[in-house]
Amino acid sequence: MSVPAGNLLAGLPSGSLPDELFTTLTETAASTGAVRIERILSTGQASPEGFWYDQGWDEFVLVVQGAARLQLDGEAERTLGPGDWLMIPAGRRHRVAWTDPTAPTVWLAVHIGEPIPPKKMGRGQNA
Amino acid sequence: MSVPAGNLLAGLPSGSLPDELFTTLTETAASTGAVRIERILSTGQASPEGFWYDQGWDEFVLVVQGAARLQLDGEAERTLGPGDWLMIPAGRRHRVAWTDPTAPTVWLAVHIGEPIPPKKMGRGQNA
Repeated sequence: MSVPAGNLLAGLPSGSLPDELFTTLTETAASTGAVRIERILSTGQASPEGFWYDQGWDEFVLVVQGAARLQLDGEAERTLGPGDWLMIPAGRRHRVAWTDPTAPTVWLAVHIGEPIPPKKMGRGQNA
Repeated sequence: MSVPAGNLLAGLPSGSLPDELFTTLTETAASTGAVRIERILSTGQASPEGFWYDQGWDEFVLVVQGAARLQLDGEAERTLGPGDWLMIPAGRRHRVAWTDPTAPTVWLAVHIGEPIPPKKMGRGQNA
């Protein structure tokens, strides 16, 4: 029986993308919400001025490749490079201040306890 | 307020370790079990002959750096390098057949719905 699998570094663009590219790798439904694992690919994008992500669930983020600056509300921007990770608690506002425009930045995000839209139930969605 | 954070590639050994090194990065308790995110550092270790991991919860694994071979029960060994990930479903036996003995292999593992021992409740355990 095959299992969901892939490579985070496969198919990276040689130039800039018009938008960040979000790809759900796997999703496991639980009664307390989904655990959703996602690749995010940035090629210079940043959150719009004044925009904050404000999520009701914990999010673990890891920079696999590239460079970025992430800001948590009330803090200076953090510069992140390969291997850097942080756990953003539910309710902690945050924004992407900058990503490297010269090469793709590959993130892994683990959303823990994300609300499950009716159509997204299930698991092992592959990409 | 500071959040759990670190770098997966920090403090890598220059030589071999006597054993694999398992470090819990974060842990979030939920009524359905914990979501535990772990760094695993291998320097040539492999599962003993005939040994299989047999877990009652899903595990997402990613090779961040290095090289390894992983075997799922009933399959040939899979060779994994940087960026390779797979989702090992609950109940699917697996073993580490080989890790590169010449340089550290850094894994990220996300254990989804792992049973919570009484002493391990809580979250944000940092390392």
